[in-house]
Amino acid sequence: MKEKLSELKDYIKNIDHVEQAVALVYWDMRTTAPKKALEQRGELLAYLSAEAYKLKTSDAAKELIEYFGPLMGKLDLVDKAMVEKFKKNYDEVKKIPQDRFREFMLATAKSEVAWEEAKEKSDYEIFKPHLKKIIDFKKEFIEYKGYNENKYDALLDDFEEGITVSKLDNVFSELRDAIVDLLDRIKASDIKINTEFMKDNYSKKEQDKFGRFVLGIMGYDFEAGRLDESVHPFTLNIGNKDVRLTTHYYENDLKSALFSTIHEGGHGIYEQNIPDELLGTGLAAGASMGIHESQSRFYENILGRSTDFWTYLYPYAQDSFPGLKNIRFNDFYKAINFVEPSLIRTEADELTYSLHIIIRYEIEKDLINDKITVDDLPKVWAEKYKEYLGVEPSSDSEGVLQDMHWSDGSFGYFPSYALGNLYGAQMLNKLKSDVPNIYEELQKGNMKPIYEWLKDNVHRYGAIYKPAELIYKVTGEELTAKYFIDYLREKYSRIYEL
Amino acid sequence: MKEKLSELKDYIKNIDHVEQAVALVYWDMRTTAPKKALEQRGELLAYLSAEAYKLKTSDAAKELIEYFGPLMGKLDLVDKAMVEKFKKNYDEVKKIPQDRFREFMLATAKSEVAWEEAKEKSDYEIFKPHLKKIIDFKKEFIEYKGYNENKYDALLDDFEEGITVSKLDNVFSELRDAIVDLLDRIKASDIKINTEFMKDNYSKKEQDKFGRFVLGIMGYDFEAGRLDESVHPFTLNIGNKDVRLTTHYYENDLKSALFSTIHEGGHGIYEQNIPDELLGTGLAAGASMGIHESQSRFYENILGRSTDFWTYLYPYAQDSFPGLKNIRFNDFYKAINFVEPSLIRTEADELTYSLHIIIRYEIEKDLINDKITVDDLPKVWAEKYKEYLGVEPSSDSEGVLQDMHWSDGSFGYFPSYALGNLYGAQMLNKLKSDVPNIYEELQKGNMKPIYEWLKDNVHRYGAIYKPAELIYKVTGEELTAKYFIDYLREKYSRIYEL
Repeated sequence: MKEKLSELKDYIKNIDHVEQAVALVYWDMRTTAPKKALEQRGELLAYLSAEAYKLKTSDAAKELIEYFGPLMGKLDLVDKAMVEKFKKNYDEVKKIPQDRFREFMLATAKSEVAWEEAKEKSDYEIFKPHLKKIIDFKKEFIEYKGYNENKYDALLDDFEEGITVSKLDNVFSELRDAIVDLLDRIKASDIKINTEFMKDNYSKKEQDKFGRFVLGIMGYDFEAGRLDESVHPFTLNIGNKDVRLTTHYYENDLKSALFSTIHEGGHGIYEQNIPDELLGTGLAAGASMGIHESQSRFYENILGRSTDFWTYLYPYAQDSFPGLKNIRFNDFYKAINFVEPSLIRTEADELTYSLHIIIRYEIEKDLINDKITVDDLPKVWAEKYKEYLGVEPSSDSEGVLQDMHWSDGSFGYFPSYALGNLYGAQMLNKLKSDVPNIYEELQKGNMKPIYEWLKDNVHRYGAIYKPAELIYKVTGEELTAKYFIDYLREKYSRIYEL
Repeated sequence: MKEKLSELKDYIKNIDHVEQAVALVYWDMRTTAPKKALEQRGELLAYLSAEAYKLKTSDAAKELIEYFGPLMGKLDLVDKAMVEKFKKNYDEVKKIPQDRFREFMLATAKSEVAWEEAKEKSDYEIFKPHLKKIIDFKKEFIEYKGYNENKYDALLDDFEEGITVSKLDNVFSELRDAIVDLLDRIKASDIKINTEFMKDNYSKKEQDKFGRFVLGIMGYDFEAGRLDESVHPFTLNIGNKDVRLTTHYYENDLKSALFSTIHEGGHGIYEQNIPDELLGTGLAAGASMGIHESQSRFYENILGRSTDFWTYLYPYAQDSFPGLKNIRFNDFYKAINFVEPSLIRTEADELTYSLHIIIRYEIEKDLINDKITVDDLPKVWAEKYKEYLGVEPSSDSEGVLQDMHWSDGSFGYFPSYALGNLYGAQMLNKLKSDVPNIYEELQKGNMKPIYEWLKDNVHRYGAIYKPAELIYKVTGEELTAKYFIDYLREKYSRIYEL
């Protein structure tokens, strides 16, 4: 069996190698490759993806899975998780007929182009037929995969294994009601927050320098990573020793790059802390998209928008940016926590962000379960934004066309963002009781206790545990909206004197 | 047959894809990847190289070759060259037993490390046993491959198909004698050339800016390429739409980066001008290492160290670099053409450079033919440097250890550099008669006629023709040292008033 285990690991390493090549090509396309290279690079990506597909679905893979079938009880924790994950990958890919998958890929390629055009022209009708096709494919794939209670569960499972509609309906409705209530009280508050100075002139060079300074304090390792610029910020890793972040600078906006850098830094630290022992097991990754988002949002919001974090950093920020010279600490703190119901998810504040997610969750669920159709989408979108946030899009581009996720078929992905908020607050609660002096240390610019706690309790397990197992192991509790709601209430009551 | 041709092209495209991934990983390692990534990246490179090997030696490859065997007469020029090249690759790789090749790769990995240590400690004894092993492998591989007259021919063939010792002995001895004669007369000349100002302070930023300006004038396409910095300058392409140059800046030396940028630019323009029609034929590349060097050296020396080139550029250079403000044009021109016999190949001037190559050629040939052994190497090296250049190394690191080529087994490669000089001068002769006003245009900063001539006569053929065929096709003459010798005599007689 030992021999077979090492055979399996070698096999997984081969898949890792192909995927590392894909990751590097992708990173390069987004940051570095010259313009005219992109078409040929698309062909290279298609070739490498096909190679990965072959490896994942080969007879050799099947034989390995069959060999371990009756032996699962004899495997230790990591080996068992490795085989299970390998099998899950195999099953998922294999269950979809290869020609249907190819047709789906072609459909998404067209759909992405249509979405771009539709967004530019702010015309949902251009995108609608493509979206319908994508949803039909998704429904078809759900049937191949199977599900227990709700069709949408099969899609959630792609990104957050084990999470279901019945669980999410509970936590999300509790969260939604709490946020809507808080938002109503904030709207009624007399507190006026000035954010004008955040739109002053902030040089790209200084933003970059300050971003690197902050990442260094967070514990991000520049010898095992980079920070570059791209159109949209992202984190991508090529193994655990090469974790690359990108951000995007706007010279008339300090907030955007600063918080996206901190956000991506949270993802990056997670990947850098994946232990070497997990390399080649298929488990050298985050536990799920939601857990990954918990790390990025923990750094971005829970730490990055806290008074304690800025107690240390604000003098440095004032040194770096003339625009902050005459701004009092408290005004800066309020400006980075200013709440304003808005139409665009990616520009939303910490409080209202989850409402944008919940709206998308409710819509996706209803689309997949045929409770609404693509024809209803703009109307339903507008109604929900009106109901939860009190705003209404005046065009499709600031409404239903704003995100690209649906154009490539990433249904089931959005909930991860809100789950990240919930997990993060649960972790904060546990962290505070494990390390009572974290805020004092944070005020001194010492983030090491937090870094170590996350590493020891979350990062070092990679993808050994399913997200529900991990959050229970870390906090002793199942997924709950309670801590995040408490956190929001406490924070915004203070800021808006509710 | 049409079907089989397209099958072969698809097959070659797959090999290209793997090699493109290798190229990107390699470029990234040399320019971008964080420090800690390098070890894992080595594993990725090994995986991808093994995949390329598999594709090149598969049964499918064999079947394709066998299919076309009896049909070669029916193929057109390009298809025939494609099949021949594919077969040559297959034969060469297949003839070496796989386990011997693997052992050779392991030996070179160790040898490269030993060479680095030996060079650092300037101790040839550290490298010697490894070098012996590498040479033994090379001799063994020569037997697998076969040869007609001289064992060393088999190695020359790896880099310059069709070139032989008997041809090289002729042209190189003629070249050597001519250069040695010129050098003796230069040494006796009263002309004193000041090069001190070239070692002034030249900011990296300005050097980079000026280098890009020059590349632009040369016709290098930045939308299909990049310029970055690396320890040693190189050119690497990932298809013809993504051709990346690197250089290395020294702030106390204007010459180094400037001429290496122009040199790499010559390689880069060649690759960018490979026509799309050759993609996926295995012929979308330079005709040989020597032809490639002819392009880089043409731009670097024949154009880049000419009065005409600088007539246009020098005012811009003076604007860019304060160190040139008070330097007269003629003094600058002489400084970039200053001749000084030296110990280090990569720092050699245009005239003496070929002597460094000829020394290496003579030594490689004698090593492979057992006329000398690794024990004799430092002595032979010193004697030849004394005889041809009049200088003697005071240490191994400035003697036999200076180049890394032997540590990775690249025997047969060095001659390409000198062949490039010869080919380049032959092309110049033809170019001057085809386009009589090139010097006038060059003086006006118009390099387009040269760019177009090289594109039409050299670049567009990719690797369709063997180097000997190509040089004959372009110039109507076979390889000869005549034009390069004439060029050197004319140029240096003028500069040194001989």
